[in-house]
Amino acid sequence: MPVEKTTVEVALGSRSYAIHISDNLLSQLSDLPLRIRGRQVLVVTDEQVGPLYLSVILDQLAEFDCQSLVVPAGEKAKQLTHFETILTRLMQMRANRDACLIALGGGVVGDLTGFAAACYMRGIDIIQIPTTLLSQVDASVGGKTAINHPLGKNLIGAFHQPTQVIIDVRTLNTLPEREYRAGIAEVIKYGLIMSPDFITQLEQQMPKLMSLDRVVTEGIIAACCRFKADIVARDETESGQRALLNFGHTFGHALETATAYSHFLHGEAVAIGCCLATRFSASLGLINQQDVDRTVALFKAAGLPTEVPTDLPECLQSQLTPESLAMLMTLDKKNQSGEYRFILLRQLGDAFVDARVSQSDVIEFLSRPV
Amino acid sequence: MPVEKTTVEVALGSRSYAIHISDNLLSQLSDLPLRIRGRQVLVVTDEQVGPLYLSVILDQLAEFDCQSLVVPAGEKAKQLTHFETILTRLMQMRANRDACLIALGGGVVGDLTGFAAACYMRGIDIIQIPTTLLSQVDASVGGKTAINHPLGKNLIGAFHQPTQVIIDVRTLNTLPEREYRAGIAEVIKYGLIMSPDFITQLEQQMPKLMSLDRVVTEGIIAACCRFKADIVARDETESGQRALLNFGHTFGHALETATAYSHFLHGEAVAIGCCLATRFSASLGLINQQDVDRTVALFKAAGLPTEVPTDLPECLQSQLTPESLAMLMTLDKKNQSGEYRFILLRQLGDAFVDARVSQSDVIEFLSRPV
Repeated sequence: MPVEKTTVEVALGSRSYAIHISDNLLSQLSDLPLRIRGRQVLVVTDEQVGPLYLSVILDQLAEFDCQSLVVPAGEKAKQLTHFETILTRLMQMRANRDACLIALGGGVVGDLTGFAAACYMRGIDIIQIPTTLLSQVDASVGGKTAINHPLGKNLIGAFHQPTQVIIDVRTLNTLPEREYRAGIAEVIKYGLIMSPDFITQLEQQMPKLMSLDRVVTEGIIAACCRFKADIVARDETESGQRALLNFGHTFGHALETATAYSHFLHGEAVAIGCCLATRFSASLGLINQQDVDRTVALFKAAGLPTEVPTDLPECLQSQLTPESLAMLMTLDKKNQSGEYRFILLRQLGDAFVDARVSQSDVIEFLSRPV
Repeated sequence: MPVEKTTVEVALGSRSYAIHISDNLLSQLSDLPLRIRGRQVLVVTDEQVGPLYLSVILDQLAEFDCQSLVVPAGEKAKQLTHFETILTRLMQMRANRDACLIALGGGVVGDLTGFAAACYMRGIDIIQIPTTLLSQVDASVGGKTAINHPLGKNLIGAFHQPTQVIIDVRTLNTLPEREYRAGIAEVIKYGLIMSPDFITQLEQQMPKLMSLDRVVTEGIIAACCRFKADIVARDETESGQRALLNFGHTFGHALETATAYSHFLHGEAVAIGCCLATRFSASLGLINQQDVDRTVALFKAAGLPTEVPTDLPECLQSQLTPESLAMLMTLDKKNQSGEYRFILLRQLGDAFVDARVSQSDVIEFLSRPV
């Protein structure tokens, strides 16, 4: 029986692939046309997701020479040492170029496994099975892979497209609520940079999205995948328009770095970053206060933070001064020699890359009261 | 004054680049149109090449924010740890996406630095300045980058094209003679797989090539770069024809692995591998004995080995049995699930990929007397 699902195509010529979205897809893997060319498969997952979904997947891959590898949960898995562990296992399996990796988990597992797939024998296939909202609407699509360097996040990586993305909305039921809300930050971001209509839709459907209504959630995830597929198809390696996806991330990454990745979930930092970038756009006369209010209200409706906190322990709070945040932003990957590159809003649903913002503009903006 | 040089173009659309070949180019870098987009430059070299050419290069890059990094000489530099060292230095320089790496040295430095360039912020520019014959005719062109894994050579890598290749033929004067001869193995290989005329040319010019005659050597290097540029332009990521460049390498890699990379230079193993692959092609009725004799004579004229040695210390010799070599070949990156993929000769100057050779065919062939 064919599996009922929504399919979004990412059009990249010979590297094109499908994103399959449905409820309960993980139990129907063997009914999907899985894109596995050879016989060797290695499923990589983490200590949180593995116990929940690994066995149901392995059961359905019985026809393959399939092994699995469990890495620690959380950001600490995105290290050179775990990258090497995956490659070692592939070597021990004597995996060939037609071997396939499967990343089962959130963005960390997807980024780490994706980078291993990019590098093993200069590139083997990978199927992404994202199990968090954040990775379903963002990280698993588009081929950005990376691990962290002790001196900076996502600084070691590659562009390597998956051969398939399989999104089972049901996995969101086991996701901690805080992580689910954090994922909604990236959902709202698509509206802000690409579609006023999607903002309106989110304003109406936020309660149903928050309560994980199956039809609404599946529809919104599919819409996000279409937004991202559209941008990635036009700009695979972020030479231009793809940078718009980093809206809110320049501020967001600075917040994460300043707090040593210990305080905010990525989506929470992005939520604050999006609100800051929206207010910054208003302060430059690009959008009006009403747009700012709508944006902030939408993030609040998702239970997300919208301002730089002022009540952190002193050791963290002291890192959040305008000066130190502005300094951290100079390390952003989007920057060219000595210049900021900021994503700003021309209007709600229409973003652009601005290279005229100076460090003192940012410090001045961050110093103002909200 | 414009620099006198031969330029070979590698046509890869937006990733196209030029290979500049001349005598004494390193002293005229500042007269070249160097393809450096930003201001940050990191020159990576090794302990052997650095003392010879680093200062002349740094002197000419004074207008940039330029640093240098010296890695150990030899294959041991192609490790994850040195890869990380390069990335750490880039981080410490706060290198942006428009920073440029320069690889100054042989294939090891080129492969290692190229892989770092491929991965830092998902890809920054690299200029290759190869200083060995092997890297001038092969490794520096085409964008294959890699490091070694304890369990296998070149198993961690990426395709990442340089933005420019600068070949100064004069650097060959400081190359140890054994390494120079080893480089000639890859030169002869181009003739065997692509051009009967080039074989004839090499038969005539081998004495002048061996004595480093400037005009002949420059012409032959340029011819090799054209052969490689032609193949790479048609098949950047080795999905088809580029595999022909691995002629002789399946046997060659097995010989290197069996002797733990301690006995043969890469080119020496390739020389033996090319002779074996030529004889293997004859044994399958594809070419005749006269072709085999011409091939072997050409490698001998370059002072290269043409047969699996029989006089090694027992600990090494015992690794060179037909069975163990055939087993090692199953790990070759070109193989698909469970099948050998061998490059064979249809005639001298015309190679093809064959997938019908079995492990027992190889064992049987290797067991025969020469």
